[in-house]
Amino acid sequence: MPVDLQNLEDAARGLAGIALRTPLVESPALARQLGVPVWLKAEQLQPIGAFKIRGAVTALRRLSPEVRARGVVTHSSGNHGIAVGWAARRLGVPAVVVVPEDAPAIKLEAIRSTGAELVLIQDRAQREPTANRLMRERGLSFIPPYDHPDVLAGQGTCGLEILEQCPTVETILVPVSGGGFLGGIATAVRGRKPGVRVVGVEPEGAAKLTAALAAGAPARVGAPTSMADGLLAPAVGAIPFQQMAGIVKEAARVSEDDLTAAVRFLWQGHGWRVEPSGAAAVAALLGGRLRPTGPTVAVVSGGNVDPELFSRLIAG
Amino acid sequence: MPVDLQNLEDAARGLAGIALRTPLVESPALARQLGVPVWLKAEQLQPIGAFKIRGAVTALRRLSPEVRARGVVTHSSGNHGIAVGWAARRLGVPAVVVVPEDAPAIKLEAIRSTGAELVLIQDRAQREPTANRLMRERGLSFIPPYDHPDVLAGQGTCGLEILEQCPTVETILVPVSGGGFLGGIATAVRGRKPGVRVVGVEPEGAAKLTAALAAGAPARVGAPTSMADGLLAPAVGAIPFQQMAGIVKEAARVSEDDLTAAVRFLWQGHGWRVEPSGAAAVAALLGGRLRPTGPTVAVVSGGNVDPELFSRLIAG
Repeated sequence: MPVDLQNLEDAARGLAGIALRTPLVESPALARQLGVPVWLKAEQLQPIGAFKIRGAVTALRRLSPEVRARGVVTHSSGNHGIAVGWAARRLGVPAVVVVPEDAPAIKLEAIRSTGAELVLIQDRAQREPTANRLMRERGLSFIPPYDHPDVLAGQGTCGLEILEQCPTVETILVPVSGGGFLGGIATAVRGRKPGVRVVGVEPEGAAKLTAALAAGAPARVGAPTSMADGLLAPAVGAIPFQQMAGIVKEAARVSEDDLTAAVRFLWQGHGWRVEPSGAAAVAALLGGRLRPTGPTVAVVSGGNVDPELFSRLIAG
Repeated sequence: MPVDLQNLEDAARGLAGIALRTPLVESPALARQLGVPVWLKAEQLQPIGAFKIRGAVTALRRLSPEVRARGVVTHSSGNHGIAVGWAARRLGVPAVVVVPEDAPAIKLEAIRSTGAELVLIQDRAQREPTANRLMRERGLSFIPPYDHPDVLAGQGTCGLEILEQCPTVETILVPVSGGGFLGGIATAVRGRKPGVRVVGVEPEGAAKLTAALAAGAPARVGAPTSMADGLLAPAVGAIPFQQMAGIVKEAARVSEDDLTAAVRFLWQGHGWRVEPSGAAAVAALLGGRLRPTGPTVAVVSGGNVDPELFSRLIAG
C-alpha cells in the first residue's frame, strides 16, 4: 500500500494553519428521512472552496526546495487547478495549469486569480500530453489531480478529521472522480477504524467506480457526462484504487435530478452554496440511492458553482 | 408613519433578481436549549455578505434618473458602504464612500473593490460634515445608512420574507445599530402580523436602543464600543424609531463573550462565517439574554469579518 496512516498524519501536521479543519454539521432533515444520525463534512468552506487544497498543499510542500523552485504544472478543469495555483502562490513558486476551454468560467477565473499561468486547450485528450510537454520544456514538476501518493495523503487528512469529529461514525459517503479523495479517506479508515463502510458516489453518466469495482481494476468509461463537472474523470486512478482495497466495496450512482435536489436542499436547509459535484454524497442520501447503516457522514466536497447555474438549480 | 406596507412590497418587487431571498435555516441546537422552534435568517449569504444590499439598491433605484446620474455619496464604516458601492456599480452611477481610517481592512477592501471612490477620514465625527461637503461640491445625492425611508423600506423586505417563510413566527430578534433594519422589519410586522414580538439586540457597550426605549425618543450613548463594528451607531435614527412604535418594545443587550460564543456556534454548528455584528441576535439567545416566546427567528445580518479576528474567535 503506497500510503499509510503515518503518511496522512504527517500531511495533517503540514496542513495546520493552512487548510481548515472544516466543521461537521448535523442534518436533522436527513436524519429524520433516513432514521440514522447524519452529519455533513463541509469542505466547501475551505479557502479555495473545495477539499483539493489538502492534496495540492501536501504535494507541493513535499517537493525538495530545488525542485519546487523550478515550478509546477498540472491539468484540471477546476478545483485541483485552483488548489495548485493557490498552494504555489502561498509557497512562492511558479505554476502552470492546463485547462480545457470548456471548463466552467468561474473555475477558469478562480485559477487565473491565483496568479497561475493558464494554458487553454480545445481537446480534453490533449491535457496530459500538453502537461508532459511543459514538464520537459520548462523543467516543471507535474502535480497530478489524483493519481499520486502525496495528493492522496493530503486529501486523506479529511478522513482523519471525520473520525476524530464523529467517533461513532459507521458510514461515510464521498463523491468520487479519479478517487484521490475517496482513496485518501479509505486510508484514514483503514488505519483508524477499518469497520467503517466507505461508499463512493458518482453520477450515473460517469460511473467509473462502479466499473472499477466490477472489473477489480480501474476501467475506463466512455464519454463521461454530468452537470457534476468535477466528477468526470474517465477512470479511477491506479494508486487511489489500490488504497481503497478492502475498505471501499460499494459505489452509489446519482441522477442529474438527484444532484439538483441536493444542491437545493443544501441551500435551503443549510444556507450553503454547493456545486453539483460537491453535493453528490448528499444526493445519494436524499435520492434513496443507498441505505446508510448507523451514524453517517456525507462529505460535501466543494462550492465553486457558476452563479447562473446555481440560480437555475435552486429556483427549481 | 413615513413607511407603510405597500412601500415595502414595492421595494421587494424592485429587489427581485438582485438581492437574494435568503434561506431560513432551522437550528435544532438552539431549539433544544430554548424549548421553542428556532430558525436563522441567513442574510450573510447576500451577494455583498450582508442585508444592507436591500436598502442601498432600493434607495438608489428610487432616485430619478437625472439625480442618479450625478452620483451618490454615503458614509459608513462597513457594510452600508459596500452596499452603496455595489448598487451604484450595478446601476452604472458614480459613488463616493466616506470611511473612517480605522474601519476593518476587509470592509475597506470590499468597498474599494466595488469601484467606489473612498474618502478616508481620521475622526469619525467628520463623517457627516465630509459627506455633506461632497454633496454640495459635486451635486451628489446622500444615501444615509439608516435614517431614510427608502433605505428602511429596502431593509424591511427581509421582514416580509420572514413572515412568508415562517408564518407561525412569534418572536423575531434583529441586531440594531441605527435601526434601519429593525425599523424596517417592524414595519413588515405591523402590516402583516402585528402580534409578533420584535426585539432589537445590541452590544452592552453600544446600548442606544435601550436608551431610546427608556427615553421614548432617540438618545445618544457616549463612545459606543464593541467588537461588533457594525452596531456602533451613537443613536437610533429618528425615522427608524418612529417605524418601531408599538412593535419594538424590548432591547436585549449582549456581552463581548456572548458575541464570541455566537460566532463560534454559527461556524461549528452551521458552517457559516458570520461577523460579530451579524451574530448578535444568536448571541442573545445563546447567552440567555432573552426568553423567546413561541416559534422564533433570529436574523443573522452579515458575514464580513476580518479573517484574523475570525480565526481568533473560533479558536476559542
